[in-house]
Amino acid sequence: MADPATPLFERIALIGIGLIGSSISHAARRANLAKTIVGSARTPETIATALKLDIIDQGYATARDAASGADLVILCVPVGLCGPIAKEIAPVLKPGAILTDVGSVKGSIVRDVAPHVPPGVHFVAGHPIAGTEQSGPESGFAELFDGRWCILTPEAGTETAAIEKLKTFWEKLGSHVEIMAPDHHDLVLAITSHLPHLIAFNIVNTAAHLERVTDSEVIKFSAGGFRDFTRIAASDPVMWRDVFLNNKDAVLEMLGRFSEDLTALQRAIRFGDGETLHKLFSDARTVRRGVIQAGQDTSAPNFGRTPDPAAGLKSGADKA
Amino acid sequence: MADPATPLFERIALIGIGLIGSSISHAARRANLAKTIVGSARTPETIATALKLDIIDQGYATARDAASGADLVILCVPVGLCGPIAKEIAPVLKPGAILTDVGSVKGSIVRDVAPHVPPGVHFVAGHPIAGTEQSGPESGFAELFDGRWCILTPEAGTETAAIEKLKTFWEKLGSHVEIMAPDHHDLVLAITSHLPHLIAFNIVNTAAHLERVTDSEVIKFSAGGFRDFTRIAASDPVMWRDVFLNNKDAVLEMLGRFSEDLTALQRAIRFGDGETLHKLFSDARTVRRGVIQAGQDTSAPNFGRTPDPAAGLKSGADKA
Repeated sequence: MADPATPLFERIALIGIGLIGSSISHAARRANLAKTIVGSARTPETIATALKLDIIDQGYATARDAASGADLVILCVPVGLCGPIAKEIAPVLKPGAILTDVGSVKGSIVRDVAPHVPPGVHFVAGHPIAGTEQSGPESGFAELFDGRWCILTPEAGTETAAIEKLKTFWEKLGSHVEIMAPDHHDLVLAITSHLPHLIAFNIVNTAAHLERVTDSEVIKFSAGGFRDFTRIAASDPVMWRDVFLNNKDAVLEMLGRFSEDLTALQRAIRFGDGETLHKLFSDARTVRRGVIQAGQDTSAPNFGRTPDPAAGLKSGADKA
Repeated sequence: MADPATPLFERIALIGIGLIGSSISHAARRANLAKTIVGSARTPETIATALKLDIIDQGYATARDAASGADLVILCVPVGLCGPIAKEIAPVLKPGAILTDVGSVKGSIVRDVAPHVPPGVHFVAGHPIAGTEQSGPESGFAELFDGRWCILTPEAGTETAAIEKLKTFWEKLGSHVEIMAPDHHDLVLAITSHLPHLIAFNIVNTAAHLERVTDSEVIKFSAGGFRDFTRIAASDPVMWRDVFLNNKDAVLEMLGRFSEDLTALQRAIRFGDGETLHKLFSDARTVRRGVIQAGQDTSAPNFGRTPDPAAGLKSGADKA
C-alpha cells in the first residue's frame, strides 16, 4: 500500500498552462499529488506568470524539455496541437510514464496521438467537463473540478493499472470519473457542450449585425436572457475552432436535430399553436431539475449572481 | 415639493403576485413608495402566501376588487391576460390613477389594453428587463430591479406628469428607465430575450429526445455549457407561451436571421473553414466585454456560481 505522504506522481509535466493546466496544478498541490510540477508554454510571459503564481516549479520553452523525465504528462493545449506535440515529445517520454490530455474531442486526439506513443508509455485520453469563460494561467483555481465529471477514453489493451492510477488522480483533483469510448464521448459532448457553444457564438453574432437594433441596445437590455449566452460565447476562440474542426460529424448530427426541432417551434409560433409551445416549454423545465439534483449547477436563482449595483448605476449615470 | 416622508402612491394594486409582482412589492416597501399595497391572485394559496410574506396588506380574489380605489394599478400577469383584465377592472379605476403592466411584449398589450382605459386614467405600458428562472410569490426579492433597465412605452398624447411619476417609481425601485415605441421594444426584446429563451427551450428538448445519448448523460455532463441553457429554459411556460403568441412577427424575423447565420456556421464546419470559425468566435468575445462594462452581468467567472461539492459528491457516490 502506498504511503499516504508519498505523492501519487514524482513529476507532472503540464504541456500548456491555461485555465485547465493551471487549475490542475492548483488542485494537485491542494491534494499533494506531485513532488514536482513542471510546464511549458508558447510564450515566455505565460511561463513567468506560472512561476510567479507557483503553478509550476520549473518552466520550459518546449514541450519536449518539459515532458522529459515526467511520470505524468498532460497535454493542456487546443485539440489540433495534440498530435504534433505527441510527435515532438515521443522520443523523451520516460518508460512507464502516463500520457494524457484534456481536450474536448476524443476521437481525433486518439487518432492523432496514439501512433506516436512509444511502447512502455501508457496513453489514456481524458476530458474534464469543467471550465469557465476565462483563459490564461491567472484564471485557474483549485476548485474547478470539484463535483464535476472527468471522462477517460482509453483504447482497448491499455494497462489497467495506468487507467486506475489516472482515475485516482482525477478523483483526488475533486472529480467523478467515467470511462467511455472516444466516439461516444464525442457524441455526448456534441450535445452537452459543443452545440450550446455554437449556438451561443451564433446568436451573439446575429445580434451584433442587426440594422434595426443597435449594439448598445443589445447590451443594455441583455438581462432578459441574452447575457447568459454572451458568457459561453466569451470562451477561447482557438480552443473552440479546433473543437468544431475535429468533431465535425457529431456536431453536424446534433445541429441537424436542433434545426429540425427549431423549425417545428417556428411553425408553432407562425400558426399560433399555444398548446404545442406550452407543452415544449413545460418539458424543458424538468430537465433543469435533473441538472440541479445531479449537483451539476446551483439552485440559486440567476446562478446566484450577485448584482453589481455600482456598475449598473454608473452605466445609468452615463446614459442619463 | 413633495414631503420625502409621504409615499409616492397612496395605494398600489398588484394584479398577479408572482416573481415580478412580489419583487415590486419588496422594492416598493424598501423605498417607502406606497402607503398600502394590495393584490389579487388566481388562487387563495397565492394570496395567503403573499399576506404571510407581507407582500400585500390586503388580498382580493378578483382583479376588480383589488384595483378599486388604487392610484397605481400594475398588471403582473402573462401577456395574454392583460386585455381581459383591463376590461374587467375598467369600471372601477379611480380617476387620475395610473395603469401599467410588466409584460414582455408591448405592441399587443397596448393594442389589447388601451381601448378599455376610461378617460381620466393614465395608461403607460412598461417592462422591467429583469427576472430569474423562478416563479411564484416566494421567489420575489427587493434587489431584482437594481441596476436593470425598465422600458416604458406610453402612447402619444399620454399626460407627461403620469409618465414622469411612473418613471420616478421605477427609478426608486432601483431601475434605469428608457422610453421607446412599443414596436421598437418588441424588436429589441425579440433578440435580447425572446430568441434566447426560444433557443434554450429548443436545445433542451433536442437533448431530451436523442436515441444515442441518454437523458442521464445529458444531465451528468451538462457542465460543458448545456446547464446554462437549462436555467432560462426553466422559466414559466405560460408566460413564455404568451410572449411567442404575441410577438410573432419580431420573433420570426430574428429567428430567420439566426437560422441564416447558423447555416453559414454549419457550412464553415462542414468544409473545415477554421479561419471563418475563429473570426466569428473572436468577435463574440467583445460583446461579452460590453455587457460587463454596462453593468448588466457580473465579471466573475461562471457567473460567480458557488460550487456545491456536497451535491456533486452525493451524485458521484450514487453512481459509484
